[in-house]
Amino acid sequence: MDLLTVIRDVPDFPKKGIVFKDITTLLQKPEAFNFALNEFVQYANAKGIEKIAAIESRGFIFGGAIASKIGAGFVPIRKPGKLPSKKISESYSLEYGTDTIEIHEDAIRSGEKVILHDDLLATGGTMQAAIKLIERLGGIVTGISFLIELDFLKGRELLKGYEIQSLIHY
Amino acid sequence: MDLLTVIRDVPDFPKKGIVFKDITTLLQKPEAFNFALNEFVQYANAKGIEKIAAIESRGFIFGGAIASKIGAGFVPIRKPGKLPSKKISESYSLEYGTDTIEIHEDAIRSGEKVILHDDLLATGGTMQAAIKLIERLGGIVTGISFLIELDFLKGRELLKGYEIQSLIHY
Repeated sequence: MDLLTVIRDVPDFPKKGIVFKDITTLLQKPEAFNFALNEFVQYANAKGIEKIAAIESRGFIFGGAIASKIGAGFVPIRKPGKLPSKKISESYSLEYGTDTIEIHEDAIRSGEKVILHDDLLATGGTMQAAIKLIERLGGIVTGISFLIELDFLKGRELLKGYEIQSLIHY
Repeated sequence: MDLLTVIRDVPDFPKKGIVFKDITTLLQKPEAFNFALNEFVQYANAKGIEKIAAIESRGFIFGGAIASKIGAGFVPIRKPGKLPSKKISESYSLEYGTDTIEIHEDAIRSGEKVILHDDLLATGGTMQAAIKLIERLGGIVTGISFLIELDFLKGRELLKGYEIQSLIHY
């Protein structure tokens, strides 16, 4: 199945000159959703994964489904102030300023094999921060999966040394 | 399985005097996640549902998994400014001020049977706004599912006339 055909281009979002890749048109088609999910599941299953850690909030949509299908635990990585218990955080650079993501300290046990998941790989800054969170807790980042990768932004170079699965490339 | 035993109480979050019900301890246990998921799936399957519409962002975690399992489409209901294409919005009252949620206009077709899903039923204000969004698009709210219901806040009264499934009650 060609997933490219179910992604919608939205011009000038979130700002003028940017063509936004809208995944909601894929999500609302069950056959497309399950095709993508099965690709993620096959990848994760081959690696004996114990946790799927996904980044808020679009990463949660497939993240929970992948965890459930492979029998792994689900771990949310969230924006600041959202997680209620003891946590650690990492900041990363944006075009202007910085942003921060957080994870509960007890979300990952030392030595656990983890797949990180998000919907989109752009510059890779968010995912690089997520890798640091997992590794600070002693987890092993065994793979990283994205629905979409924007090849021209070269996020893959920032994540060098990690195995990356992307279902759709632009 | 007693899901109550895998929910963590976090005192004084998000502010002093409130005991927050933390679901991350449930999510990271595969057997608990899949037990809850199967309850949601049985409920949705019995109703011939075409779309699962879930509320950002904790609602996405089970929402995507339910949609996938029953072969329905997944529809995200999001905070303002997040959805890129043509959308409608509804505002609702909070303790102080108001908040708004949005849905894409093409997310639901007229006559489609929809289950709304979120992690928590508190006062019911957010879910009431979500119902309005679905019905404005011609969808039929066939059921509403929550992981947790805070009975003492009486959200169920605000949602009178709709069938509600809650797996955990406080």
